Amino acid sequence: MNSYNPVELIIKKRDAYELTAAEIAYFISAFLKGEITDYQMSAFLMACFLQGLSETEIEALTEAYIASGNTLSFGKGLPVADKHSTGGVGDKISLMLAPIAAALGLLVPMISGRGLGHTGGTLDKLESIPGFQTSFSMQEFKKLVEKHGLALAGQSEELVPADKKIYALRDVTGTVESPGLITASIMSKKIAEGALHLVIDLKIGSGAFMPNIRKANKLAHLLLNTGKSFGQKVRVVFSNMNSPLGNAVGNALEMIEAIEYLKGNYLPDTYELTTGLVTQMLFSTGKAKDYSQAKKMIDEAVLSGKALEKLQEIIIAQGGEPRVIDNYSFFPQANVSVPIIAKQNGWVQSIDSRTIGYALVHIKAGRQKVTDTLDYSAGALLYPKIGDEIRAGDKIGEVFASHQSLAEEAARRILSAYTIADNKKNKERMIHKLIFSEDC
Amino acid sequence: MNSYNPVELIIKKRDAYELTAAEIAYFISAFLKGEITDYQMSAFLMACFLQGLSETEIEALTEAYIASGNTLSFGKGLPVADKHSTGGVGDKISLMLAPIAAALGLLVPMISGRGLGHTGGTLDKLESIPGFQTSFSMQEFKKLVEKHGLALAGQSEELVPADKKIYALRDVTGTVESPGLITASIMSKKIAEGALHLVIDLKIGSGAFMPNIRKANKLAHLLLNTGKSFGQKVRVVFSNMNSPLGNAVGNALEMIEAIEYLKGNYLPDTYELTTGLVTQMLFSTGKAKDYSQAKKMIDEAVLSGKALEKLQEIIIAQGGEPRVIDNYSFFPQANVSVPIIAKQNGWVQSIDSRTIGYALVHIKAGRQKVTDTLDYSAGALLYPKIGDEIRAGDKIGEVFASHQSLAEEAARRILSAYTIADNKKNKERMIHKLIFSEDC
Repeated sequence: MNSYNPVELIIKKRDAYELTAAEIAYFISAFLKGEITDYQMSAFLMACFLQGLSETEIEALTEAYIASGNTLSFGKGLPVADKHSTGGVGDKISLMLAPIAAALGLLVPMISGRGLGHTGGTLDKLESIPGFQTSFSMQEFKKLVEKHGLALAGQSEELVPADKKIYALRDVTGTVESPGLITASIMSKKIAEGALHLVIDLKIGSGAFMPNIRKANKLAHLLLNTGKSFGQKVRVVFSNMNSPLGNAVGNALEMIEAIEYLKGNYLPDTYELTTGLVTQMLFSTGKAKDYSQAKKMIDEAVLSGKALEKLQEIIIAQGGEPRVIDNYSFFPQANVSVPIIAKQNGWVQSIDSRTIGYALVHIKAGRQKVTDTLDYSAGALLYPKIGDEIRAGDKIGEVFASHQSLAEEAARRILSAYTIADNKKNKERMIHKLIFSEDC
Repeated sequence: MNSYNPVELIIKKRDAYELTAAEIAYFISAFLKGEITDYQMSAFLMACFLQGLSETEIEALTEAYIASGNTLSFGKGLPVADKHSTGGVGDKISLMLAPIAAALGLLVPMISGRGLGHTGGTLDKLESIPGFQTSFSMQEFKKLVEKHGLALAGQSEELVPADKKIYALRDVTGTVESPGLITASIMSKKIAEGALHLVIDLKIGSGAFMPNIRKANKLAHLLLNTGKSFGQKVRVVFSNMNSPLGNAVGNALEMIEAIEYLKGNYLPDTYELTTGLVTQMLFSTGKAKDYSQAKKMIDEAVLSGKALEKLQEIIIAQGGEPRVIDNYSFFPQANVSVPIIAKQNGWVQSIDSRTIGYALVHIKAGRQKVTDTLDYSAGALLYPKIGDEIRAGDKIGEVFASHQSLAEEAARRILSAYTIADNKKNKERMIHKLIFSEDC
């Protein structure tokens, strides 16, 4: 292993040659041992970003990431299924999906992340529940899944430490949005956590990393093929991220919206996406055979109260305050609220989710830097979607924050994110298309 | 200045947008202040390497490099001229050129480097003279030039510290061979040292960074245009680096060859190149008007002994043992020597200078890493050039080293660098072509 020269490997990638699996394994393990420096890794990552990685290289990188830590296995044939989202504004789907899937008998070992930049993070939303813990050893995590059918936790130090260290470097060196690096990062964690079935919510649009369907197609095929080479069944759902999901953005507000959902108070877009994603989990694990059966099972899990019970069960198991389910005053409360008032008549043509995401960072509902602290009570309710008609003077939303001035500035920025014009605009579909491993 | 976001600037370059002069100035100064990390700089350098730098960006980078330290100025209108070589095997031209130019009334503030990899360094060759000092403050260096007409020193901490720090990073991150980065690195030092006239020996061939004339042309134009924008007169000489220069390779051996040259014992290739380069220095400073005048002046400087006196003068001024001039036993002496014997008849078709360079690293005549120590006595004498006819059994060279086994291995490797075949091969020209600032 030690006969490789790090600089020669950087140059090989820089000059667009394909690296061997052994070379990639060496580069990752030598980096973790400190034999390859941060600055060599970041030059390498930029070379990977600009020259691209072949499918063989991505597979080798995924393998090297997985080999850097411990892995979980729940037993062959068990319906272990997870969902991964590429991130969006107001994306609280995991909060409904995991309890529903667990209520339907799936095992859901869900490892989530924190919000950064304009996108939120499932862990932050969960931590708006007082006392809720998200940090577990891999064995503790496994026991939670085996006992409750789900666990909602952060990435432990034992799980794919190479990705954790390299992701931190990518974040500060402009090397995030690389299909190859993204694929290895996502798939290594989802394979190492023991999910035999994976549904990926690949978001496309103004609020997502993937601006268009062409780039998303490429990423989807990389994700599918990588999963396949590790024996994982992967399904990719292309979903619309041109409008924020649901009405709530901000941590406690989204948690409350998720609880309302599990009480049967659906919003159309979150219902369509949650149901669509759980349906794919049921198909992949063989629990359902067609759409009408799946939809019936999912509706029944919610309307019977079983999914809400699952959420309450896991809140208790992870140390959280279970009374939040019935009494939202147990969540942190914002000091002020400011309405967002439309200034013109017309139809919503587009919504700049990025602007909304950064307005949320402004009121500390999101982070600019990983070290920023959050105000869990801060956020907004936003009602109109693309294609909705609004009138000047309508209250189209409301901002919740710690100070009046912060809330007013956020309301101003959020309003500017809506493009309104006289011409009628069609509503948009939530789900664009589906791709399965079998297609590859 | 502080309103720039380092990651956004890396991404801007990564995505092939042109950076403004203010952005480049910020990036370099923030790096020197430690506000931008090594790993961010190396991602940036790889992005510059792969996306390229425009002439405007190169000028801004050169300016930012110069601004990072102090500069020298010898007074307007003075014939301050320097030579820079892009590096090659056996390139001891500076050791003859600087004393000849100084003997002809030019001021030569020559800042040189050390050898690394397969190429040697002028400082190492000079330091094979016992006691010879190459480390001076910029003011000490200036006084040497003003008093003796030349100084032969290393880059002081005050001179372009940004380049020093960034070059060290480029060396270990695979970002050396970038025309834009090379141009800023060379030109910032040559402008900051106060050289109003600069002749660049741009080497092309198997032993050089530039493998072909197309890439060399591009680099030459960048060097010329950058010099021009700082008011420096630049001339680029394209020279042949398919054969090692002269007969000697290795530090003390090359120093001795240079002294022999200044005693009038010319070799054809070093004579052609030295005379060609000094001629351009004389033309640029207006000291000579045509080739025959320049050649006469140069020959006279050597044959009169004035150039040798200059060398002796600067050896004394820089603390070296002046008796080396007349008694080569004052140089470090190798323990063993091993002849290199040709094994077949034929004409030399090609010589792999890189292989020779790395054979020299093996006997410690060169360095693999900057921290490696040198054996000044180690090296080789190599007689045949491309186009020479040789016969099996001929002694075509000799290796000098500290141990028999090292010398034998080096002799074996050097022999393998010569491709010999039955077909007659033409000798090659030393100088390919010249380009002047006026051409741009």
